[in-house]
Amino acid sequence: MQFNPLLDSIKTYEAGKPIELVVREYGVAPEAVIKLASNENPFGPGPNARKAIVQAADQIHRYPDDSFFALKAALGARLGVQSDQMIIGAGSDQVFDFITRALLQPGDRVLQNRVTFAMYAIYAAQVGAQVVSTRSDTHDLGQFESLMREHRPKLIYLCTPSNPAGDALDREAIYAFLERVPETTLVVVDGAYMEYAAYRDEAKRIEPAELIARFPNTIYTGTFSKAYGLGGMRVGYGIAPASTIAALMKMRPPFNITNLSALAATAALEDGAHLSHAIAHNFKEMARYEAFAHQMGFSFIPSYTNFIALLFGEAISATAIAQKLLQKGVIVRDLKSYGMNAIRVTIGLEAENDRFFECFKEVF
Amino acid sequence: MQFNPLLDSIKTYEAGKPIELVVREYGVAPEAVIKLASNENPFGPGPNARKAIVQAADQIHRYPDDSFFALKAALGARLGVQSDQMIIGAGSDQVFDFITRALLQPGDRVLQNRVTFAMYAIYAAQVGAQVVSTRSDTHDLGQFESLMREHRPKLIYLCTPSNPAGDALDREAIYAFLERVPETTLVVVDGAYMEYAAYRDEAKRIEPAELIARFPNTIYTGTFSKAYGLGGMRVGYGIAPASTIAALMKMRPPFNITNLSALAATAALEDGAHLSHAIAHNFKEMARYEAFAHQMGFSFIPSYTNFIALLFGEAISATAIAQKLLQKGVIVRDLKSYGMNAIRVTIGLEAENDRFFECFKEVF
Repeated sequence: MQFNPLLDSIKTYEAGKPIELVVREYGVAPEAVIKLASNENPFGPGPNARKAIVQAADQIHRYPDDSFFALKAALGARLGVQSDQMIIGAGSDQVFDFITRALLQPGDRVLQNRVTFAMYAIYAAQVGAQVVSTRSDTHDLGQFESLMREHRPKLIYLCTPSNPAGDALDREAIYAFLERVPETTLVVVDGAYMEYAAYRDEAKRIEPAELIARFPNTIYTGTFSKAYGLGGMRVGYGIAPASTIAALMKMRPPFNITNLSALAATAALEDGAHLSHAIAHNFKEMARYEAFAHQMGFSFIPSYTNFIALLFGEAISATAIAQKLLQKGVIVRDLKSYGMNAIRVTIGLEAENDRFFECFKEVF
Repeated sequence: MQFNPLLDSIKTYEAGKPIELVVREYGVAPEAVIKLASNENPFGPGPNARKAIVQAADQIHRYPDDSFFALKAALGARLGVQSDQMIIGAGSDQVFDFITRALLQPGDRVLQNRVTFAMYAIYAAQVGAQVVSTRSDTHDLGQFESLMREHRPKLIYLCTPSNPAGDALDREAIYAFLERVPETTLVVVDGAYMEYAAYRDEAKRIEPAELIARFPNTIYTGTFSKAYGLGGMRVGYGIAPASTIAALMKMRPPFNITNLSALAATAALEDGAHLSHAIAHNFKEMARYEAFAHQMGFSFIPSYTNFIALLFGEAISATAIAQKLLQKGVIVRDLKSYGMNAIRVTIGLEAENDRFFECFKEVF
């Protein structure tokens, strides 16, 4: 068979290593493995989400309601948007896939930060679009604006707060930028970690309803995978004007999340206390990482998320550190593939963080 | 924004109506609704699959192992294939999406039966490929062969047994056809309902390992959504030579099934007794549908699946019957959109089938 020649240019996503793999490949006892690599909520799902799963375990032979009526009703009430302004994805990841395929054609350009969520560029490559990137690790809207004028992208991604760097843009700065974006360009505001950023600094908070009312050429994406503690269930969403959502729906396959995912996400919206506790704990522990970096004499990017990027000088290899940590059963993310000599560490439970500090000192 | 002009030509999939919708829209009490519309296993998931879900309900914050190591090991052992000959999809549905995007470019042709799974053509439309269809309701390999010679398709779908008609091809007939297909054409053998067909008639059984060994230009697709009773969990798979799988993997997004889906599917492979019971019951009840059709004086397509297509003459409208059944809380699938004056009824539990016969007599 002659497959699509585009395949040659497509890289595949490097997923965080699962606990089972470390057990298999490094012979570490399962209970000794700590996973600080995939920005999961270390407290797990909330009580309502767990209960929803257990209660529906005997109904998994039933296809989901393909309209996701109950989930959209609950999410719409929370965000102040209508059902026809929402699309549900298997993670916000899948919403990027819908956007890419509904909007882009070969040769169209996509503008993104140099260090950002890797799937934006992978999806763009799948349809033969060209990716234009800024130069810096963290978002710089000045660079975005000049590249926008030069390359006239059809699609722009703002990841705020940003993964894997952790920086976040101010709402007013984003709005000022959006005033200068042509109406024919779609801007994705990826708020996968927004619950964390909004807690740390109110100036970073983006409200999807306000965003899309002021700027009809935007789409806000959110997820249940991070603060909501449902990473394994693959539920995200896009919020945009109805005409944009109608276009994306043409690319949505039926039943694109599981029935348990829809139930868990709907229930998780009622797990507010669990969320608040996890987020407050996250930043309390984050302060320990910052102090640790100071103490050890290396630098970091101030983070508005549930992870922190630790930056090493030229004498130290982040890749070597990540590898040595792995042999001790501590899984973190090496950021070499993003062009950074850095590791990204998910803020874990207190004891997990203790273990990280301890192991890190041994390998540093 | 200027969306992809292809969007205008894309129809969206018409999903079977969920129970909740019938409750909402027709005011039928939830306990009075029976859903015979989506070919779900009416006995539900097996005991091992249920247990796997309940046991992992507190681990849903963890992303799945993106290599699906355990599931591939168990499935590979069952089917006699290696890990690199398998791709996991969110339903076999998603495998068709991967195939379409990895193989087809605008203007390429896809050959399929006129009456067949609707997503084949929807995915083809999404990439601007042209669909060529046979003329008949059931599969006729003579028609496939002459259309293949005329149109030189890059991709051919054989759905056996076929949804929504229920017919199945003999293995030897498929092999004879495949001998005449050019090596440059990929043939999908969609065995979503194969567990049923193989039970009813051994001559219909396709073994994926044998298929791909004899014909390297084929891919077999299977699913956990039907006989395995996991429709809500969205797990399917493709089996093909490693080079084909490597190409499809380029189009697979990370974490494309949930962690619970992977666990449930792995466990379901140990639910053999549950499956055998459900399949035997299916054909015992199928005989009652056949007798009912004879008694009522209408015809049907002999079925190798867990559903039956009931065919009406010109005097009776299948659409009207489906609508009247819906008002009584009995959900079946009207096949009008497939160009058939017929309804497709999933074989339910004995009491559900009783209720169908009873309601049907009232509306006929």
